[in-house]
Amino acid sequence: MREIVIGGAQMGPIQKADSREAVVARMTALLDQAIAAKCDLVVFPELCLTTFFPRWMMEDQAEVDTWFETQIPNAATQPLFDRAAAANVAISFGFAELTPEGRHFNTQILTDRNAEIIGRYRKVHLPGHVEYEAERSHQHLEKRYFEPGDLGFPVWRNLDAWMGMLICNDRRWPEAYREMGLQGVELVMLGYNTPTTNGQGGNEDLEKRIFHSTMSMQSGAYQNSCWVVGVAKAGVEDGHGLFAGSVIVDPDGMVVEEATTDGDELLVHACDMDKALFGKRTIFDFKKHRRIEHYSRITSQTGVIYPDGTAG
Amino acid sequence: MREIVIGGAQMGPIQKADSREAVVARMTALLDQAIAAKCDLVVFPELCLTTFFPRWMMEDQAEVDTWFETQIPNAATQPLFDRAAAANVAISFGFAELTPEGRHFNTQILTDRNAEIIGRYRKVHLPGHVEYEAERSHQHLEKRYFEPGDLGFPVWRNLDAWMGMLICNDRRWPEAYREMGLQGVELVMLGYNTPTTNGQGGNEDLEKRIFHSTMSMQSGAYQNSCWVVGVAKAGVEDGHGLFAGSVIVDPDGMVVEEATTDGDELLVHACDMDKALFGKRTIFDFKKHRRIEHYSRITSQTGVIYPDGTAG
Repeated sequence: MREIVIGGAQMGPIQKADSREAVVARMTALLDQAIAAKCDLVVFPELCLTTFFPRWMMEDQAEVDTWFETQIPNAATQPLFDRAAAANVAISFGFAELTPEGRHFNTQILTDRNAEIIGRYRKVHLPGHVEYEAERSHQHLEKRYFEPGDLGFPVWRNLDAWMGMLICNDRRWPEAYREMGLQGVELVMLGYNTPTTNGQGGNEDLEKRIFHSTMSMQSGAYQNSCWVVGVAKAGVEDGHGLFAGSVIVDPDGMVVEEATTDGDELLVHACDMDKALFGKRTIFDFKKHRRIEHYSRITSQTGVIYPDGTAG
Repeated sequence: MREIVIGGAQMGPIQKADSREAVVARMTALLDQAIAAKCDLVVFPELCLTTFFPRWMMEDQAEVDTWFETQIPNAATQPLFDRAAAANVAISFGFAELTPEGRHFNTQILTDRNAEIIGRYRKVHLPGHVEYEAERSHQHLEKRYFEPGDLGFPVWRNLDAWMGMLICNDRRWPEAYREMGLQGVELVMLGYNTPTTNGQGGNEDLEKRIFHSTMSMQSGAYQNSCWVVGVAKAGVEDGHGLFAGSVIVDPDGMVVEEATTDGDELLVHACDMDKALFGKRTIFDFKKHRRIEHYSRITSQTGVIYPDGTAG
């Protein structure tokens, strides 16, 4: 038994006008709840220090950069790190990262129990588009404001378990979980900001959109025999809805905790990392069952190539 | 609109003593139902001409070979092909294939409307084991009796759509769907024989086992935006239970038809292949969103390699 009590810290909406300090005060309040619940690790959402700014078209890079952090921890987030260190609780959260070299990433960090950053992930699967698209019901300009992550899908040892991170749209891509599964991942932490409607139309009500999100995390968990903690930023931000549906999923793909609100809400579950072992040793014993000689398209081609040779 | 009326022909148990002719008579009765329901294509299960023989340990290769077909169609199956051709209905079914070179595969074929075989798939992800394992509650000797498929995951044009096949355990491996997704697949046909209990133990009741099966098909469908038809061989065979749970899943990952019995049962659904297009052009537009530079472990390593360099 390797039990980690995990807090999944869903966050309600953050408006454009809300300061970092006000947001960090909310995160610290959730952390306090988690400390009281004896959590070992608390996971916060994607880009959780600000509103989900990629919904806004901005031409001025200086304005764009106001949504980014040039350093973490910084003055605004230091209180969160201090509280976590004092309580010996590891944390993970997402933010917009502007590097010293001027590069922009959608990033998530992971700390140890001393609030030292031991892991950094940069979102690989950026959804959306680069230019304003009038036909969309709302903009989703992640491909404009970020470059794709350059760190792959790393896995770290922390709290006596193998841990990795994904961010939002990454959760729909089985390649992302598999890259970590092939490193023995036992816990995947991910946050998301997902609109309640599909900006490109389609036949998706809210229930179906949450189903897609949850199912993607469940199949990622089951097919790699790992825990998945998925936490939303939810509610109505600046007039735009984000769905909730935060969950903790066990290595059998079963939802064991689920958010009931679309505000700040803490899910707590005692997760035994040893539960990941059965699947890894039987049906998903990759060494015995995978057949990489037949997977070559997955890494040799990005888009569709039909059997008649035309590109999709 | 490119509508294909699909019949998913679940089959009840086939006992060791049942002849090929008796089984083909049952298949032909299901085909007749499908013809009456105006089906264009009928999908039968994995290894559907015999009992699921890999549950039995056999030392004598001559005995093993009695469960294999050296040619398809052959005398026993010809009536099925004749009926399908007369009605202009395409069919797909699974059987144990013994090639002229003496090779053994777990195979599925696909015909056009004239009952001409246009596609052949050989199961890649063989579950189970090679030698008798006393600690198992039942044997699952697929790795003993078959070699892994050597044809990859091909996709064919048939009935004005792109079609592929998977067999049983393949449905749990996202690499299998993705290989076909990268060829633009719009319909995946698969059959299975899945025991009602996990021979290696674990914490799985029947409900969870069916959930794993269905979820794997749903996520494969959603994440590649394709239809999936999954048909079981079900019921109690020679004292061993196989679960039912046959489904037709749409490209949104939603179950649109589901079996209600564990016997011979036909699911019918009018599947519009154009429904596959929305997902392929938006959230799963692979060309825009996949990042193959970060997927290299998927094809370069078979088993787990932990970040500390140890092998799993």
